[in-house]
Amino acid sequence: MAIPQTRRQFLQAVGVTGGAGVLYSTMGALGLAPAHASPPFRAPRESDFTLTGRAHRSVLILGAGIAGLATAYELRKAGYKVRILEARKRPGGRNWTVRGGTVETDLDGHTQRARYAKGQYLNAGPARIAQHMVTLDYCRELGVPIEMFGNQNADGYYYNEGVGALSATPIRHRTAKADVYGYVSELLAKATDQGALDGQLTSDDKERLLAFLRNFGSIGGRADGWKYTGSTRRGYLVDPGAGTEAGTPNLPPYALSDVLASGVGQYFSFEFGWDQAMLMFQPVGGMDRIAYALEDAVGGERITYGAEVRSITDKGSGVEVVYTGPGGRLSVASADFCVCTIPPQVLVKIPSNLTPAVKDALAYAQPVSTGKIGLQYGRRWWEEDDKIYSGITNTNLDLSTIWYPSYGYHGAKGIVVGYYNFGGNADAYSALTPAERQARAIEQGVKIHGEKYRTELETAFSVAWRRTRYSEGGWVSWPSRTSGHYGRLLEPDGNVYFAGDHLSYYIAWQAGAFESARKVVTDLHTRVLSS
Amino acid sequence: MAIPQTRRQFLQAVGVTGGAGVLYSTMGALGLAPAHASPPFRAPRESDFTLTGRAHRSVLILGAGIAGLATAYELRKAGYKVRILEARKRPGGRNWTVRGGTVETDLDGHTQRARYAKGQYLNAGPARIAQHMVTLDYCRELGVPIEMFGNQNADGYYYNEGVGALSATPIRHRTAKADVYGYVSELLAKATDQGALDGQLTSDDKERLLAFLRNFGSIGGRADGWKYTGSTRRGYLVDPGAGTEAGTPNLPPYALSDVLASGVGQYFSFEFGWDQAMLMFQPVGGMDRIAYALEDAVGGERITYGAEVRSITDKGSGVEVVYTGPGGRLSVASADFCVCTIPPQVLVKIPSNLTPAVKDALAYAQPVSTGKIGLQYGRRWWEEDDKIYSGITNTNLDLSTIWYPSYGYHGAKGIVVGYYNFGGNADAYSALTPAERQARAIEQGVKIHGEKYRTELETAFSVAWRRTRYSEGGWVSWPSRTSGHYGRLLEPDGNVYFAGDHLSYYIAWQAGAFESARKVVTDLHTRVLSS
Repeated sequence: MAIPQTRRQFLQAVGVTGGAGVLYSTMGALGLAPAHASPPFRAPRESDFTLTGRAHRSVLILGAGIAGLATAYELRKAGYKVRILEARKRPGGRNWTVRGGTVETDLDGHTQRARYAKGQYLNAGPARIAQHMVTLDYCRELGVPIEMFGNQNADGYYYNEGVGALSATPIRHRTAKADVYGYVSELLAKATDQGALDGQLTSDDKERLLAFLRNFGSIGGRADGWKYTGSTRRGYLVDPGAGTEAGTPNLPPYALSDVLASGVGQYFSFEFGWDQAMLMFQPVGGMDRIAYALEDAVGGERITYGAEVRSITDKGSGVEVVYTGPGGRLSVASADFCVCTIPPQVLVKIPSNLTPAVKDALAYAQPVSTGKIGLQYGRRWWEEDDKIYSGITNTNLDLSTIWYPSYGYHGAKGIVVGYYNFGGNADAYSALTPAERQARAIEQGVKIHGEKYRTELETAFSVAWRRTRYSEGGWVSWPSRTSGHYGRLLEPDGNVYFAGDHLSYYIAWQAGAFESARKVVTDLHTRVLSS
Repeated sequence: MAIPQTRRQFLQAVGVTGGAGVLYSTMGALGLAPAHASPPFRAPRESDFTLTGRAHRSVLILGAGIAGLATAYELRKAGYKVRILEARKRPGGRNWTVRGGTVETDLDGHTQRARYAKGQYLNAGPARIAQHMVTLDYCRELGVPIEMFGNQNADGYYYNEGVGALSATPIRHRTAKADVYGYVSELLAKATDQGALDGQLTSDDKERLLAFLRNFGSIGGRADGWKYTGSTRRGYLVDPGAGTEAGTPNLPPYALSDVLASGVGQYFSFEFGWDQAMLMFQPVGGMDRIAYALEDAVGGERITYGAEVRSITDKGSGVEVVYTGPGGRLSVASADFCVCTIPPQVLVKIPSNLTPAVKDALAYAQPVSTGKIGLQYGRRWWEEDDKIYSGITNTNLDLSTIWYPSYGYHGAKGIVVGYYNFGGNADAYSALTPAERQARAIEQGVKIHGEKYRTELETAFSVAWRRTRYSEGGWVSWPSRTSGHYGRLLEPDGNVYFAGDHLSYYIAWQAGAFESARKVVTDLHTRVLSS
């Protein structure tokens, strides 16, 4: 379709009269814009102050996680005086990359020291970024190099126990898809051809649907009864090669009833999700490259590490925060405003004169359990033996998923995420000592990968976020967003603002922290400019 | 499932009695081996000569493409005296990475000089490597760093013309999948629930199938008539964000009839293929990093560039090849054996005393047309505007596909493959001058990406493989593999062996060239050792 030359005026008109949604939709149909877009964000500017003659205000930010760092970063663009208090000795918060030498003591007193080799790392918190997320815009702006993250892999496995004939059978994603799509296509083609859907489909629809199903399922035609008999999509027992080696396809397919009982198809939709669909990305060298880039941009001298907040008091004219300084003694920090990014379940336990409604709202947020273990192997057997280069294996074991690393291909060593799980499974591992978690993860993984999963292990490091100091959860969930509690935290409590992924529709994603920081910066700056 | 301690003996027994296929299959079921494997390759060793007292033989290799380089590389491991004659001034053959300064004159006399910026490149030939391909083993062995290649992307577009209501509408892959899978699930759920498939399905099967379809298609339940009404899998008009911005989903779905008529579903199965399923990879810095690494390993002094072969004569006691040397004058090279990797359609025109059966076989191979254009833009608008980070857009236009680069994310510039097409479409572009190809590619691409596709273009370089000197085709197809012609080239003609991807079941893949080289090396070495 040709683009009319008057499109700008046309679109402006649509935008003015129809709102952003109509504007974007129309632009998308014209091939002029993505099919989605974020509302524009305008960072505060120095000229906002110089042009209005207003004074620069000071902002004390609690927490040097992504929300706190991004708040400081954006406010600094207009010259706000910012200072960050951070309880940990590093930036990033849950954006935490564990490397050799990392030491952590959890709330149960377990101390782990990571013994990973140079160049090896575990992204203990966030580990993947979708293309459409604002996180990538910050990577661009801050000069953080990115690389692709393997969130799905046709050569990863599905492994379910207690599911009938295919129990305890590692099945490649490609093989499972071939069989499920094959049988689904066969069944729908038969039903369609027999007229069962004539009330829904025109004869043109039917022929087009049948053509689609033949291709989608790799099934026979009408003369073959639309039968699925397997295909090379399942993979090979012996690969194609040179000369007369045409390959030995991995046939026959599993039986329809067995495939249905196995439950493998329930995993497929993961990759259709808005936030999880490939392609996805990660910073080169570890997720914390984002945190350290933000620290650099904000200025390390503006961040006080090792500062545990003891009390928060809104004095009306400003906010006063008492904290234990680097030496352990009490100190006081003050500013015109405070932006608090401490997780609700932690903040609610800190003495403050926040209003009861705010405290109720903080208590309403439900922290979520999640955990990971990073298993370092002395050989990248998943690449060498299994021909799996990054990606994920899904299971119904308590380990939930196994991740193969999306960096260091062909290197001497590598770190496999031996579990990344949630809820009850995470609680079960959380209750164990680090050594017990390792033993349990290995015991499960051996079922899929054999004894090398045990014998070639070099060292491990695990994190249980619910029992991790200063976080006490992987993220939070809101029983309801409309109960008033969530909304209460979107507004300031006097001079105290709240930010974090928990105050966004991207909970558990760094994008939520960035988006929330942008909102608070906009709200605070608007107030300052209108005061 | 626990792995029995006696598995080695057990598997050996199975392997002995059941053949490789049964062995691999059994190992796969035990979680001990990949579900596929390549037959083992054992490179010739120096000890094969020192232990047997045999003399090292000399081998003249024609062509420094991947097959020729790999042949030399493997033979050198045992100390064979190897020499390569290569008509081009560079290694790699069709493994060709175009960078700023690359100059090429095609068979029609069109000369192009690439004006790409530093760091920008176009892989004019092979551009992607599947995880299971031997090509990656060579990257490991040669120390060629690899990175992920985006062969599919949920945010790429489908764009078809002449397909009804959705003609000329760019549709994101994720949106198309959501609608097709939604409607397929709705239709099959209805047919299943109405008993249309009771002859095929037990009641357990039915409930499991319905549970799968609800998840797979994101459809309503029985009470909702299994209806598909769209979901956030389609994407958003306005993205989710902070505070109360839950996002505006891109709804409603397209109508069932329109989706079927659009043909978008016909693209889905591409990613299920053995050779095309993600994850896929590429060398960091250009595909020719493999060719140059092989050149380094073989030793550049063993390769004569600019050497066009004029005749091939098997003297019985050895092979004599006349070629035009670097200065243009005729030279002669001799060796005990010759491995010829010149494409069949080129080789058949070179005078030789090859037997008539071999010449017939060479003439039987059908060269395939394919072409690419690399469009350099001064801004990575596909990332900034469309949030597409690598991946492919599929169309029914004559450009066939548009590829977004899998390197240089967030950089200042980038090269988009403006077409990668085959057969008639490739012939159409091949018949044009480079400037005309560029104009045609732009005219088509503007339909999808708008005027920026034209206005922000900086420079372009195109390749038409059928009209590229020394290649004269992207690859070849065999009308039949069993006519005797293909098989004839798998055997030596006297002292002349043949190698190349055309002599494998991985035609058009570098893996085929590697596999073929391994076969010829094995055949030749076996002959030498038994002589």
